[in-house]
Amino acid sequence: MTSLQTPAPAAQPDCCVPSAAPALNAGDARQKALIFKALADPNRLRLLSIVKAGESGESCVCDLTEPLGLGQPTVSHHLKILVDAGLLHREKRGTWAYYSLVPGALERTAGLLATL
Amino acid sequence: MTSLQTPAPAAQPDCCVPSAAPALNAGDARQKALIFKALADPNRLRLLSIVKAGESGESCVCDLTEPLGLGQPTVSHHLKILVDAGLLHREKRGTWAYYSLVPGALERTAGLLATL
Repeated sequence: MTSLQTPAPAAQPDCCVPSAAPALNAGDARQKALIFKALADPNRLRLLSIVKAGESGESCVCDLTEPLGLGQPTVSHHLKILVDAGLLHREKRGTWAYYSLVPGALERTAGLLATL
Repeated sequence: MTSLQTPAPAAQPDCCVPSAAPALNAGDARQKALIFKALADPNRLRLLSIVKAGESGESCVCDLTEPLGLGQPTVSHHLKILVDAGLLHREKRGTWAYYSLVPGALERTAGLLATL
C-alpha cells in the first residue's frame, strides 16, 4: 500500500526522451507550409525567376505567358498564388497587371528554413 | 527595293523587351520544385523541426509519431518524402529507423531562393 507521503521521484534525465511537443507548433507549420506550397511548382518558380530577372523590377502579365508556353488564365492562376503567399506584388495599370517581387520576401522565406 | 548591301540596323535597346527565356530553365525548375514540395506540408515541417531540435542529432521513428498525433504509416510516408528530397538521412538499426538532417541541406535549400 503506497503512502500519500511518498516523496516525489527524482526528475528523470532526458537524455533519451524526446520532447513531447515539436519545436514548431501546428499553426506556424501551416503558415510556413503555405509559402513553400507556393514555391512547389516549376511554373511558379520560373515566373518568380522571370520577374526577378527583369531589369525594370516588374513584369507585365502580358510578357509572362510566352516564355512559359502557357495560356494567360493558367499564368494568372499561378501569379495569384504567388501574390497570396506574399512573394509577389501586383499592380493594375490600365489594361494590364504588373508584378514585382515583394522586397525581402525571398530572403524571409529562406530565413524560415533557419528557424524550423 | 532594298539593297543587299543595306547596313544592318542598329541593335534595338531592350529597355522594354522581356527576355524570351526565363532565367530558370524547365529542368532546374522541376528539381527545385520537388524540394519545395517536400516542405509544403505542415506535418513534414514539424518532423524536420523535431529532428533538428533533437539533442543527439537523430530521432527514432518511434519517437516521431506521438508529438504529431499521427499513425506510424503516415509519419513514415512523410519521412520518406523528406529523405527522397535529400533533406533527411535514414539509418536502420535493429527494429527502428533513425532520422537525421542531411548536413547543409536546409542551408542549400535556402540558397535555391537566392539563385532563382
